[in-house]
Amino acid sequence: MKQIFIIGAGYVANTLIHYLSENSNKFDWQIKVGDLNFELAKSKVANKLNTHAIQFDVMNDAQCKKEIDACDVVISLLPAKMHHIPAKYCLENNSHLITASYVSKEIKAFDQAAKEKGLLFMSEMGLDPGIDHMVIMKMIAEIEEKGAEITGLRSFTGGLIADESDTNPWRYKFTWAPRNVVLAGQGTAQYKKNNKLKFVPYKRLFSLYDAINIDGFGNFEAYANRDSLSYMPKYGLENIPTFIRGTLRKQGFCDSWNALVQLGLTDDSFPIIGSQNHRWNNLIDFFLPDEGAADKKTLVQRLSNFLDVEEDNKIIKKIDWLGILDATPITLKDATPAQILQSLLEDKWKLEESDKDLIVMSHIFDYQLDGKEYKLQSDLAYVGKNANDTGMGRLVGMPLALMAKHLLIGNVTLRGVQIPIDASIYNPVIKDLEAYGVHFNDTLKEV
Amino acid sequence: MKQIFIIGAGYVANTLIHYLSENSNKFDWQIKVGDLNFELAKSKVANKLNTHAIQFDVMNDAQCKKEIDACDVVISLLPAKMHHIPAKYCLENNSHLITASYVSKEIKAFDQAAKEKGLLFMSEMGLDPGIDHMVIMKMIAEIEEKGAEITGLRSFTGGLIADESDTNPWRYKFTWAPRNVVLAGQGTAQYKKNNKLKFVPYKRLFSLYDAINIDGFGNFEAYANRDSLSYMPKYGLENIPTFIRGTLRKQGFCDSWNALVQLGLTDDSFPIIGSQNHRWNNLIDFFLPDEGAADKKTLVQRLSNFLDVEEDNKIIKKIDWLGILDATPITLKDATPAQILQSLLEDKWKLEESDKDLIVMSHIFDYQLDGKEYKLQSDLAYVGKNANDTGMGRLVGMPLALMAKHLLIGNVTLRGVQIPIDASIYNPVIKDLEAYGVHFNDTLKEV
Repeated sequence: MKQIFIIGAGYVANTLIHYLSENSNKFDWQIKVGDLNFELAKSKVANKLNTHAIQFDVMNDAQCKKEIDACDVVISLLPAKMHHIPAKYCLENNSHLITASYVSKEIKAFDQAAKEKGLLFMSEMGLDPGIDHMVIMKMIAEIEEKGAEITGLRSFTGGLIADESDTNPWRYKFTWAPRNVVLAGQGTAQYKKNNKLKFVPYKRLFSLYDAINIDGFGNFEAYANRDSLSYMPKYGLENIPTFIRGTLRKQGFCDSWNALVQLGLTDDSFPIIGSQNHRWNNLIDFFLPDEGAADKKTLVQRLSNFLDVEEDNKIIKKIDWLGILDATPITLKDATPAQILQSLLEDKWKLEESDKDLIVMSHIFDYQLDGKEYKLQSDLAYVGKNANDTGMGRLVGMPLALMAKHLLIGNVTLRGVQIPIDASIYNPVIKDLEAYGVHFNDTLKEV
Repeated sequence: MKQIFIIGAGYVANTLIHYLSENSNKFDWQIKVGDLNFELAKSKVANKLNTHAIQFDVMNDAQCKKEIDACDVVISLLPAKMHHIPAKYCLENNSHLITASYVSKEIKAFDQAAKEKGLLFMSEMGLDPGIDHMVIMKMIAEIEEKGAEITGLRSFTGGLIADESDTNPWRYKFTWAPRNVVLAGQGTAQYKKNNKLKFVPYKRLFSLYDAINIDGFGNFEAYANRDSLSYMPKYGLENIPTFIRGTLRKQGFCDSWNALVQLGLTDDSFPIIGSQNHRWNNLIDFFLPDEGAADKKTLVQRLSNFLDVEEDNKIIKKIDWLGILDATPITLKDATPAQILQSLLEDKWKLEESDKDLIVMSHIFDYQLDGKEYKLQSDLAYVGKNANDTGMGRLVGMPLALMAKHLLIGNVTLRGVQIPIDASIYNPVIKDLEAYGVHFNDTLKEV
């Protein structure tokens, strides 16, 4: 009997627990779900075969030793920067580790030791990063097998809202950690375009987006995501002229979000001491440039001037819809602008019980074959069921579950710190995902 | 006999060692100067009475214990974020500590323990922060003694270059740690103006400057510096309508520096892998927005478009003078944009042997008295002697030396973590600074 220990019972856990439990008799698995919030963990295992819940604190040394020693594989759903804690115990107690997060420096440092102990520490095994890596690597192999030369790869993912639940002017609701959404893009995006490196500072990121059309779902806005360059060698595309990984939003989002960025509302670098004593319209005023005598203008006039748009512009309307141009009280104490904005958006962009989310993913390859140029676009559009069974939760949870399955049944010989770019991982996992309904739609055009 | 231990033999040490040594017989002092670079430390104590040099490593536990136990006061010239290391040994071995740096969280945490041990940990005891605090506190006391109500305080300092040595189009040379100059202003400036809080993100900081005139020295550009708000309670000015601390630059600097900021060249958040394989004109290209077909324009044309100025604009000329629009090789390996920029500027903005630097400081009070409104401006302009005896070195070093003197002769009863805002500190230190030639010029006008 194999023991699987899931740390964290948040929304990604649903699909993960469901799949593992459904297959537990077949493969002889026991599943344990640990969360600081015992009630939450219990709710997630109710009526689930071979599955039980514990109250679990990853900061409790004795408990970590005991539980991680008792299992064969840990699936950590902790926040990205905390995975190194279970990783340490995995190494000491001979357990494999699977996460959906980017490989951090701390995790990377475990590579050699994990290899020596014969352990797999698989990271980036969710949706993006995760499914994107796997589908791209499979496509690269297929294209190169034809003898073609790849000249461009642009890969984009968005966690959005289905049209039928698209009920606010921002066309966005939270289906992912709100803090990550508010801070998205901070730093400098790095990619390559037409044989030139491109560095895009945060202050310009949301004004530089491309249009991406996904058949049957319309146009989306695509902005670059973090450090694309480091994935070129991982994908074996060191010398490719164009290489961009990015994020998709519905049309109209980027310009309006950029207005909040330019104002400074996504700033998480300092607390506003006494923030609880202010109101939203004051906060906006604090960020607007001082105009001296022009301070007699209305807030909307001053904001329009600052953004260089008309007062009836859609951007102003979206900002106004948030209520931040009114005397809405700020309740968070001594909070950063980003924390204050997040708390407002958590209310305004809340996913309602019956809302369906939408995952869109698009991989666009340019390649040359026999003197001709081709564009191959592979798109996924996946609609969730409701707020408790989201596309996001399914498409992050399923790869984690499938990775655990293939590892425990002995199909995987990779060891050390890995991401899912090896054929021994992506072939079986993609096959299983297709059976689960994750279907990419490919369009090939000569250009 | 009292023992003074100076950690760090950089350029601030010159004036400090000189003053302490000159007064060492009178007050019965022994001065020890420790630096990792023993030759540097030796050069600074040559022919100095009662002063000797040691090779000193602040990461060497045994040596720290020995040397800090042996002295009465430590003057730390280490980088700001390292002071907490000698501070720990000061607490364990009963030595006072003096630094010219902002109070860090780590230093602040020593407050209670230092008080219990009867030790003074004096921070912000240089020029700015330092002399500014002292002069302002003395002026506030004098203004309030008249029964006046202070309605505004703007305080600015600049470490610049004297007109006779002002030989490059930027009108700036390094007289202070180049890294700090390149990264200056990153984060969000916070101040208060006309009863409104004002938050200015880095991306807008260098476009929002005021003109400050200093009698006999002309106009300067003043931009806001870090968190001014936290000094309002420290100065006893909690409810003042306008309060700004800031930095001075010569005319024309801010717009040109802002161009480098907008491009992204001051970004220290990511390394450019393989930076040593690129040239400066490529690097500028990497940061410029992609223009598609317009990429056929020259680099100067594209930069001018990006900055929305004419090709013969002074900003473009200053940028061109740096050589960064040419195929100048980049030699730093895998370096951040800020590191690459710093290494170029260290060459271009080098202080020549005979160059004289210029310290300018201006404190501008608005106050009301008997129904009338007054503006009181107190200015300092202090010219250094040459590159080895700078105004910057003198005006950071002297307050440190004077603080040590008044502490060791028993004039100071303050204990714990402090900054120089108490009359028992600023009165004697300002008196000594005046005797040394640090003279403020006051202008009072009814407005």
